[in-house]
Amino acid sequence: MIGPEQAKSEGAVLLANASFYRAFSEGDAATMAELWARSAPVACIHPGAPVLVGREAVLGSWRQILRAEQAFSLRCDSATVQLLGGVALVLCYEGGETEPAHLAATNVFVLEEGAWRMVHHHAGPLSTPIARPSSSALVN
Amino acid sequence: MIGPEQAKSEGAVLLANASFYRAFSEGDAATMAELWARSAPVACIHPGAPVLVGREAVLGSWRQILRAEQAFSLRCDSATVQLLGGVALVLCYEGGETEPAHLAATNVFVLEEGAWRMVHHHAGPLSTPIARPSSSALVN
Repeated sequence: MIGPEQAKSEGAVLLANASFYRAFSEGDAATMAELWARSAPVACIHPGAPVLVGREAVLGSWRQILRAEQAFSLRCDSATVQLLGGVALVLCYEGGETEPAHLAATNVFVLEEGAWRMVHHHAGPLSTPIARPSSSALVN
Repeated sequence: MIGPEQAKSEGAVLLANASFYRAFSEGDAATMAELWARSAPVACIHPGAPVLVGREAVLGSWRQILRAEQAFSLRCDSATVQLLGGVALVLCYEGGETEPAHLAATNVFVLEEGAWRMVHHHAGPLSTPIARPSSSALVN
């Protein structure tokens, strides 16, 4: 059982997480930049890639990814929120359109100026793709 | 520039992170269990594998991995600590013995009863292995 405050926080984290996948799918670099923390330190590990540390390196990588011609919709399935006070982890699967999910992801958010902002994204390949849950939306 | 308190916290987080790689390399399930948080929610994403949520599932996976006959030393290179109050992220590369690192990892710790305990481990393959820094120890 979780209390109403925890449920409210989890809902707010899931909304921030959904905004991340929507910004990715829509190639929206401005929203992506808005989503990442300003004060807290940020980092990112794209699939197969080395660790990126710092807002400049992380947002630079997203600008590069989002302006690629072959942009694609990225879906988030089965998101689980782990609340750690003013920090939240989201564990989920990522997949394109109606394909089975091919990546597992860790997204970390901090509560900054009243908003849940991203401080870390780590995505890596699944050995066996995971079928899309029947109830999942394109962006959940 | 970081202050003495931050440097102290970062040092303590790096010690907890080193304990994780030492427990792995020594096949020490008791220390591994000791390292993971008791109160805070825990999760784990092993390379290529689905998300594990909860202490029972996570520690069960470690017991299974650590009792495997082909145990091996796992080295942690180039660890970067990101402090978020009572939560800390460690980003690093993982490799065996003297081989180049073949995994990138996110390790998350919380300050619980005065000790930095693990709440999440996510490791995934690097597309291009990264050479071991000349100064890195087997467990740093």
